[in-house]
Amino acid sequence: MMAARQFGFHVGRLAPGALNVITDVPGVLVGHTTLAEGTTATGVTAVLPHGGDLFQTKVRASADIINGFGKSVGLMQLAELGTIETPILLTNTFSVATCAEALIKRAVESNPGIGRETSTVNPLVLECNDGRINDIQAMSVSLKDAWAALDAASTGSVQQGNVGAGTGMTSFGFKSGIGSASRLISIASRSFTVGALVLSNFGRAGDLILPDGRRADPRQAKQPESGSIIIILGMDVPLDNRQLSRVARRAAAGLARLGSFWGHGSGDISIAFTTADPVLHSSASPFMSIERIHDGSIDLVFEAAVEATTEAILNALCFASPARGRDGRMVPALGDWLTQHATDF
Amino acid sequence: MMAARQFGFHVGRLAPGALNVITDVPGVLVGHTTLAEGTTATGVTAVLPHGGDLFQTKVRASADIINGFGKSVGLMQLAELGTIETPILLTNTFSVATCAEALIKRAVESNPGIGRETSTVNPLVLECNDGRINDIQAMSVSLKDAWAALDAASTGSVQQGNVGAGTGMTSFGFKSGIGSASRLISIASRSFTVGALVLSNFGRAGDLILPDGRRADPRQAKQPESGSIIIILGMDVPLDNRQLSRVARRAAAGLARLGSFWGHGSGDISIAFTTADPVLHSSASPFMSIERIHDGSIDLVFEAAVEATTEAILNALCFASPARGRDGRMVPALGDWLTQHATDF
Amino acid sequence: MMAARQFGFHVGRLAPGALNVITDVPGVLVGHTTLAEGTTATGVTAVLPHGGDLFQTKVRASADIINGFGKSVGLMQLAELGTIETPILLTNTFSVATCAEALIKRAVESNPGIGRETSTVNPLVLECNDGRINDIQAMSVSLKDAWAALDAASTGSVQQGNVGAGTGMTSFGFKSGIGSASRLISIASRSFTVGALVLSNFGRAGDLILPDGRRADPRQAKQPESGSIIIILGMDVPLDNRQLSRVARRAAAGLARLGSFWGHGSGDISIAFTTADPVLHSSASPFMSIERIHDGSIDLVFEAAVEATTEAILNALCFASPARGRDGRMVPALGDWLTQHATDF
Amino acid sequence: MMAARQFGFHVGRLAPGALNVITDVPGVLVGHTTLAEGTTATGVTAVLPHGGDLFQTKVRASADIINGFGKSVGLMQLAELGTIETPILLTNTFSVATCAEALIKRAVESNPGIGRETSTVNPLVLECNDGRINDIQAMSVSLKDAWAALDAASTGSVQQGNVGAGTGMTSFGFKSGIGSASRLISIASRSFTVGALVLSNFGRAGDLILPDGRRADPRQAKQPESGSIIIILGMDVPLDNRQLSRVARRAAAGLARLGSFWGHGSGDISIAFTTADPVLHSSASPFMSIERIHDGSIDLVFEAAVEATTEAILNALCFASPARGRDGRMVPALGDWLTQHATDF
Repeated sequence: MMAARQFGFHVGRLAPGALNVITDVPGVLVGHTTLAEGTTATGVTAVLPHGGDLFQTKVRASADIINGFGKSVGLMQLAELGTIETPILLTNTFSVATCAEALIKRAVESNPGIGRETSTVNPLVLECNDGRINDIQAMSVSLKDAWAALDAASTGSVQQGNVGAGTGMTSFGFKSGIGSASRLISIASRSFTVGALVLSNFGRAGDLILPDGRRADPRQAKQPESGSIIIILGMDVPLDNRQLSRVARRAAAGLARLGSFWGHGSGDISIAFTTADPVLHSSASPFMSIERIHDGSIDLVFEAAVEATTEAILNALCFASPARGRDGRMVPALGDWLTQHATDF
Repeated sequence: MMAARQFGFHVGRLAPGALNVITDVPGVLVGHTTLAEGTTATGVTAVLPHGGDLFQTKVRASADIINGFGKSVGLMQLAELGTIETPILLTNTFSVATCAEALIKRAVESNPGIGRETSTVNPLVLECNDGRINDIQAMSVSLKDAWAALDAASTGSVQQGNVGAGTGMTSFGFKSGIGSASRLISIASRSFTVGALVLSNFGRAGDLILPDGRRADPRQAKQPESGSIIIILGMDVPLDNRQLSRVARRAAAGLARLGSFWGHGSGDISIAFTTADPVLHSSASPFMSIERIHDGSIDLVFEAAVEATTEAILNALCFASPARGRDGRMVPALGDWLTQHATDF
Repeated sequence: MMAARQFGFHVGRLAPGALNVITDVPGVLVGHTTLAEGTTATGVTAVLPHGGDLFQTKVRASADIINGFGKSVGLMQLAELGTIETPILLTNTFSVATCAEALIKRAVESNPGIGRETSTVNPLVLECNDGRINDIQAMSVSLKDAWAALDAASTGSVQQGNVGAGTGMTSFGFKSGIGSASRLISIASRSFTVGALVLSNFGRAGDLILPDGRRADPRQAKQPESGSIIIILGMDVPLDNRQLSRVARRAAAGLARLGSFWGHGSGDISIAFTTADPVLHSSASPFMSIERIHDGSIDLVFEAAVEATTEAILNALCFASPARGRDGRMVPALGDWLTQHATDF
Repeated sequence: MMAARQFGFHVGRLAPGALNVITDVPGVLVGHTTLAEGTTATGVTAVLPHGGDLFQTKVRASADIINGFGKSVGLMQLAELGTIETPILLTNTFSVATCAEALIKRAVESNPGIGRETSTVNPLVLECNDGRINDIQAMSVSLKDAWAALDAASTGSVQQGNVGAGTGMTSFGFKSGIGSASRLISIASRSFTVGALVLSNFGRAGDLILPDGRRADPRQAKQPESGSIIIILGMDVPLDNRQLSRVARRAAAGLARLGSFWGHGSGDISIAFTTADPVLHSSASPFMSIERIHDGSIDLVFEAAVEATTEAILNALCFASPARGRDGRMVPALGDWLTQHATDF
């Protein structure tokens, strides 16, 4: 399939980055491990705020719990300390523990003092339940799979749709998966990039409202919302943690614009990190300086975050291919629906 | 002007109540004091969860701070104790103190022990800044005006548009004001009503996205968001405070669907109250029972809250008439824009 | 060693329950698995709010993050839904994943629809870092060990000190571990029990302030706080989730009274659950009734929670025996210090 | 009366500043208006983070709601924007509106664009209920009284006890009022000051636990907690808002150490501000730099905040003189109790 823009959807008024993906933010990397064979349709997606040792050079971040029906790990310490100190892994609900272990082991490998001389490390793993398509109880994701996603991480283009953690995900009754988008903003002649990457598995069939106002209904049985969505917002804008919290909260607006009411059974979580002014684990001086923008300029970051989130979700849907559910029925692709309904206007 | 439905806007899929206003919720009353003369264009709107003594018979409620750039009073204690014990007054930013005093005096009149034998009373006053149209520094709202709004409160139809606290408000560059809407839901054969009343003063010119996907741009100078919106969600659904918090949070989705990204300079606050199982100030027994629904049924309440919020905002816009700003320029009405752009489709 | 009361410490003014432990709360069970051999000094402690299937019959609960430097799992969903649906497991930092897996597998065993027909299950595992005494990187806790703690759970007396998850824990430079206490309260002639169980691993050497005002200094090297404490407050008081949140927050006062300032490196978390009015996973009716007390009576619950927390920590210290740290140095027992300083007054 | 230190109380291990008051923090000013005549026993206390125009040069701050049974204003916006833009006024519950109006008028005087060209101003007024001694319904505090407190503000020594807003306050059944204390800390050879000023009106008779472990019981009728305490923590430590939030939260530990369990009926609020790196209302550049310490050094700030809070409360009690309550009975002074019980040890 193809990008939402190729279907004619232009979300918002800000210009996208060069590739219209989260890796437009300088230094950010993304990697996937896709597991699709037999009844297995799952995987791991890694988002790395930078390519160095994140335990030694932490990025500052905040999270927002839009609806907390979920099993992600690492958010409590992120809220308290305002930093990310491992790569971010996305996966299915039952593979959180394996991915967390993979992150701990990698961190200990590079930093043998973890848990001994220094404090322990806080792995950050977020999840959605792909049980409609994937045999989640088989727990197919291994440590190796998690490491493979980390090793595959690169700057440049990002695969979207049925890939990585998104392999078995669905949204609004359509096949979904990984989506990404970005926006360029300019503050006092300095240019910044705000990128979003989503693992999109939320939304009841029939609830999707397209940017042109149409409801896209896949004519699937209407089931209670039991999905989830993880939104990673990466940026190079100089923000402090209070400001990052405000930005993280805006991701929810991106969901609402597509018809979501943040359903009860959904684990909807956003994380906003900045690559500006990272925090060193061991620094010679106990003092550091953080640059931040004036709050009077933050609306532009809010807009960029909402636009990138909405377009990333549309991309997850538009890039996805149909897939067969565990119940034998096909989960259709929005791309096909759009082609069939092209004359609706 | 007229209701959003008369302009062809049908928000969501749930049916509205008899009058499609918050007073469809049994027992809820609304009253207005409108001050519009010379450079004064402001007022007070009262929402009473019931017609009795609210200090003696408190309703349970929760609030959500969507964006906290505002000067409302009473929210801290509401968060801690989960009850509303005075009528809710809406007004302009500089009249909060007067309205709070009016509520305290009324409460003390009926309950002379307040501040002496018993604890003090927590007045609940929420505000938006109508300074674009109203001479806010004149502080035109008096104690009498506040009391008049309380005395005018009634069940039945609700005046909308340029009325009460909404007299001088604007949204998305259009004249706005008070709007309301309601939704009927049915849970296991029992019927409930969810109503919304908004004081709508948010949204930058050019950002409004109509339910049909069009951007409605009044061609006004694009200024930074410095408005606000207050959303009152009333209902008779049996919910506990944790559930009311979840419902209050959903109001933000109603804003986002119209193009808002919850701007920095906006004080966006929602309050959700239920008339079910009120809390007595002095009860013979220290024990009480509260009925609540199972969380598995709460999505219907979420949907109703989002739909009612969105339609209430559209009603605030559609019912409003144009008004002259303090700078001499007219603030146009969305109704006129819709008429002019009727052939856009 | 022996209870704090046997050393003469009487915390507060309320009477303890029959055994002065959390299992004084009717229905609550506690079980331990202790692993102490060679460089292994760790374990698992299970707290079961009742002896039935917790997934089917959930207890209502709230949590408070006193300081969020920790790696516990399950708290986000607990905050959103207000229920506990598995036993609570306490263990060391690196064994969280294993304990979570053990809980998931047990839940799926009894409820095969989990993750398929129904939503997934939310395991609740809390941790402290026992790395000063235990070789935490050896990851000695197995699934079997976690299950053994669950199987060992019983009502009646609770082993305290160097046992279960507490085997390798320290506090204020002294050997610590598991501690428990309880308080009886009476509201309008009805009797209730508030119990606390702590996994105590917090507090810098030299910071402990005893109830009689003395500082108990073990003359250990003063290191930055890098411990943690988990406080489980169980009760049969009828409370709603808003009230349980208020009770959970009071645990922090219990820590402060012993000299803690809630150090930066500490993961200090409290959970308050009530056995009153549990929530059925599948109920015939979508409506249920919850009994709650009037907030005017809640001070008694607050007091009981603070007293029980403080005494549970003192019990963890007083019941503990000295143990050898990984660095070869002995971690002394407070009981010995108290004996040596008996004439200090 | 006299300072807690003169009664032999030495709280904690850190050294106090030159005068052991909040004005030891360079630039901070305090002023009082005391109203004590007939049945009036109340007043206003002003804390100014610096002597300039706070609207133009805002200080960064965070607040913590220990228990939210209170009627303070300005906290919502403080939480969102992380700044204080007016002096902080403390007063009685029923004089909040007057003090807020006084702050708005002063701000508008210096900045006529407020509410017109620029956004409105956020007055910060915190309160306790002095109704036990003061005839609160008389509403004796005038705009002039509020302005007088602002005009009286100075650096240097701070009057404590029955003065300013503290004139009619009580704590633990004893006469209380305004108290202050400070601590010096050193981080990497740079010296900083952490100061506390409290308006102390909390604590039930009989609950006070002195630093030496004794309960100080004034033998007053034990009434439900219906007091409050406001804790202002000022400092020159370079901290960001996330860190200030963590510091503000520690004030609660200072209360707990004196026997409080943060009673239901109490409005207990702390505010932590730093004079480091203030935020300009109108700055030439939308970028600014904030210095912050490494979280690894923050324990020292936590300790200082807890020690200063505890000692400030003891000072409020020790400096206070007995006063007659509205019921005709004397409220005793802790200083007298200490003299009478000097031989208790």
